Amino acid sequence: MITTEQTIAAVATATGGAICVIRLSGPEALEIADRVFVKKNNSKLSEAEGYSVHFGEIILNGEVIDTALATVFRTPHSYTGEDSVEFSCHGSQYIADKTLEALITNGATAAAKGEFTMRAFLNGKLDLSQAEAVADLIASDSKAYHRIALNQMKGNYSSGINDLREQLVELTTLLELELDFSEEDVEFADRSRLFNIIQRLEKEIQSMCQSFKTGNAIKDGIPVAIVGKPNVGKSTLLNALVEEQRAIVSDIAGTTRDTIEEIVVINGVKFRFIDTAGIRNSNDQIESLGIERSKKAIERAEIILAVCEGYDSDILKDLDINDKRLILIFNKQDIYGNQNTDYQGEYAVISAKDNFGIAELKSIISSPYQIDSSSNLTVTNARHYEVLQHSGAELIIARDALNNGLSADLVVEHIRVIINYLGEITGQITSDEILASIFANFCIGK
Amino acid sequence: MITTEQTIAAVATATGGAICVIRLSGPEALEIADRVFVKKNNSKLSEAEGYSVHFGEIILNGEVIDTALATVFRTPHSYTGEDSVEFSCHGSQYIADKTLEALITNGATAAAKGEFTMRAFLNGKLDLSQAEAVADLIASDSKAYHRIALNQMKGNYSSGINDLREQLVELTTLLELELDFSEEDVEFADRSRLFNIIQRLEKEIQSMCQSFKTGNAIKDGIPVAIVGKPNVGKSTLLNALVEEQRAIVSDIAGTTRDTIEEIVVINGVKFRFIDTAGIRNSNDQIESLGIERSKKAIERAEIILAVCEGYDSDILKDLDINDKRLILIFNKQDIYGNQNTDYQGEYAVISAKDNFGIAELKSIISSPYQIDSSSNLTVTNARHYEVLQHSGAELIIARDALNNGLSADLVVEHIRVIINYLGEITGQITSDEILASIFANFCIGK
Repeated sequence: MITTEQTIAAVATATGGAICVIRLSGPEALEIADRVFVKKNNSKLSEAEGYSVHFGEIILNGEVIDTALATVFRTPHSYTGEDSVEFSCHGSQYIADKTLEALITNGATAAAKGEFTMRAFLNGKLDLSQAEAVADLIASDSKAYHRIALNQMKGNYSSGINDLREQLVELTTLLELELDFSEEDVEFADRSRLFNIIQRLEKEIQSMCQSFKTGNAIKDGIPVAIVGKPNVGKSTLLNALVEEQRAIVSDIAGTTRDTIEEIVVINGVKFRFIDTAGIRNSNDQIESLGIERSKKAIERAEIILAVCEGYDSDILKDLDINDKRLILIFNKQDIYGNQNTDYQGEYAVISAKDNFGIAELKSIISSPYQIDSSSNLTVTNARHYEVLQHSGAELIIARDALNNGLSADLVVEHIRVIINYLGEITGQITSDEILASIFANFCIGK
Repeated sequence: MITTEQTIAAVATATGGAICVIRLSGPEALEIADRVFVKKNNSKLSEAEGYSVHFGEIILNGEVIDTALATVFRTPHSYTGEDSVEFSCHGSQYIADKTLEALITNGATAAAKGEFTMRAFLNGKLDLSQAEAVADLIASDSKAYHRIALNQMKGNYSSGINDLREQLVELTTLLELELDFSEEDVEFADRSRLFNIIQRLEKEIQSMCQSFKTGNAIKDGIPVAIVGKPNVGKSTLLNALVEEQRAIVSDIAGTTRDTIEEIVVINGVKFRFIDTAGIRNSNDQIESLGIERSKKAIERAEIILAVCEGYDSDILKDLDINDKRLILIFNKQDIYGNQNTDYQGEYAVISAKDNFGIAELKSIISSPYQIDSSSNLTVTNARHYEVLQHSGAELIIARDALNNGLSADLVVEHIRVIINYLGEITGQITSDEILASIFANFCIGK
């Protein structure tokens, strides 16, 4: 059972810094803080104004733990919406542990993962999708991911969802009006108008579902497969892509043993380049090797870089790229020079060895992922995606029902289901189970 | 050249927490903060009072980096003594980096290691030994170490040093009085009284030097060697000592390959138990093995636990313990029972296998290290120790000079050297070189 009756405490910073912060929030926060924190002039934190900072000592069992700063927040003007105190101490694990011990000894409870943010939600400071964005914001490691998370945390995403929800509510009103007068066989709502509204909503939800592919990829890194026959320069290309930015690149052990992944942030977007050159089995047939490796990498990828020896685009025959994005790489420009090509898709002429054309290639790769900050509805959250997919499916049923001349009450039923679904995203409709599973992904102290 | 003209900035928390804190300090701190931090009501941080907290947005190149809190400190009421601002952001490395970038883009300089604390020293907020204690406090991982560091940071140690210094100044006054009237061959200062003062000071400095052995050991962990013939239960004893507190124990790879170290905190004091059972060379002679292993472990240790088979204290013959503390362990009480022993030193009767007598042994081991909080002069800092040793040596020379009836001006010369030495501890006398080397051991952001 989720409650906000306890006063919770947790260390909110990681071990190893110059400063550590311990958070305290709940109905008794100020009283507990007074028992633990002694100001020089003996004035009390419980008498202090909100948004004020105080210098004093943290005491446990009569012994001084640290000289520290305490910041007082008063309900509702705090992160959680509750009375809160944040202690800023010297960054020692020992001091952090002992300060937490002092707070718990004096009446606080150790906070669960994400419990501060959960309280912010329960106290109406954030809606659920904003609360979820806090975890994303903390995890954000590229400009694009950061921008989406910040956007969502600031409520722009929620207001998009709420717009959608309001349109659905309006739709039900129109349908119910018809329902009320159904005995009289009057159609107040023009069916073709209703049909248009549903179609528009369908399109919006569809576009949000589609954005998840990009949104989720931006969060985790967009997978790019580098495929090609042996010796066309796949590994050289990977090195060239990685090289410039060694500082922000980290190696990730391949999830399967036959691939190597390198993370490269290009123009603020994170890409995971999957090199298939890990296998060096000299007994393999050239063709089978090329095709087998490519298949595996392509399955996991969203973008395919098909590397060619010069302008020999023969590899295209063997590639089954489905709906993935394909960029042809005409490599070894240093040998084959600049030739005209009649290839109609995306391509780049490069010399991976000489780093020629790499910057242009990067800009080709990243250009479609420049998040439009005016677009607030990029879905990055798997829970939202699932809810939206269900909503889309329900909308199709509703549209068909309307199309087939079924009575308004049947159609309304489906629309109501969608309204409830969307309410789950922002948290207007929720359950302890959903909350628990969402906040379990948070860190302690947030 | 060390200056405080720049406004410095650094991330003060470690990566991976719920919150990160970015610090800004220096003459332009508030102006720079105003360029980076935008409050909702557009009021300015530079117009805010000290010790006040503000909610707003951090901006870099026109884009919002985070919603954050900014705490304003005004000179001299800040950690550094300068105008300062602390930004409390969501705990993402990306956000921390970008916030720092925003501050630097707008006029701040990246802070060097320990530069905030160095400024606190340069601005007279802390003396040098207090500043050094800040690094110790952050590193403190046991109650004893924490208490010494906190004590030192709060200035109790410095005031002890200053007392000493004042007594020396008084001594020179007495000697100089004599000097002024030396023509008249008058001894204003009673030589035997002077001699007594010097002797008392000598004793004080000596006792401080001696405290370094404990102080330093408490910081790094007091090394305890477990020695004994094969199969007397050395490893079982080590396991029994470690077992209870697995949670706060960590393995440390032995500095030499033939020993194993385990850290155990007993009653707030950190001990490094050095087990010599790492070698398992079955060709070695039993006696030579016992002696060789013991020798090595004893060299590094401050305490020797000599483990005996029952009450057979034969091992004592082979042990060259010098001035180390020796505790005899009569093991295998489960076999040999409780017998009377005429051993006069410290000992414990245990059964390591059955965990019998381990708690008592621990209390025997730790009892002399319970830091007396009324004693403020435990030396933990190698730099201070060196200075004190030099002071002690100089004092002996001064005493001899006085003893040998040399003229007061010669004695005064030596005392002045000591006064200067002690001034180096608290920083009344210092140089850029000393400062640089001290603060190089700090972390960034402190």
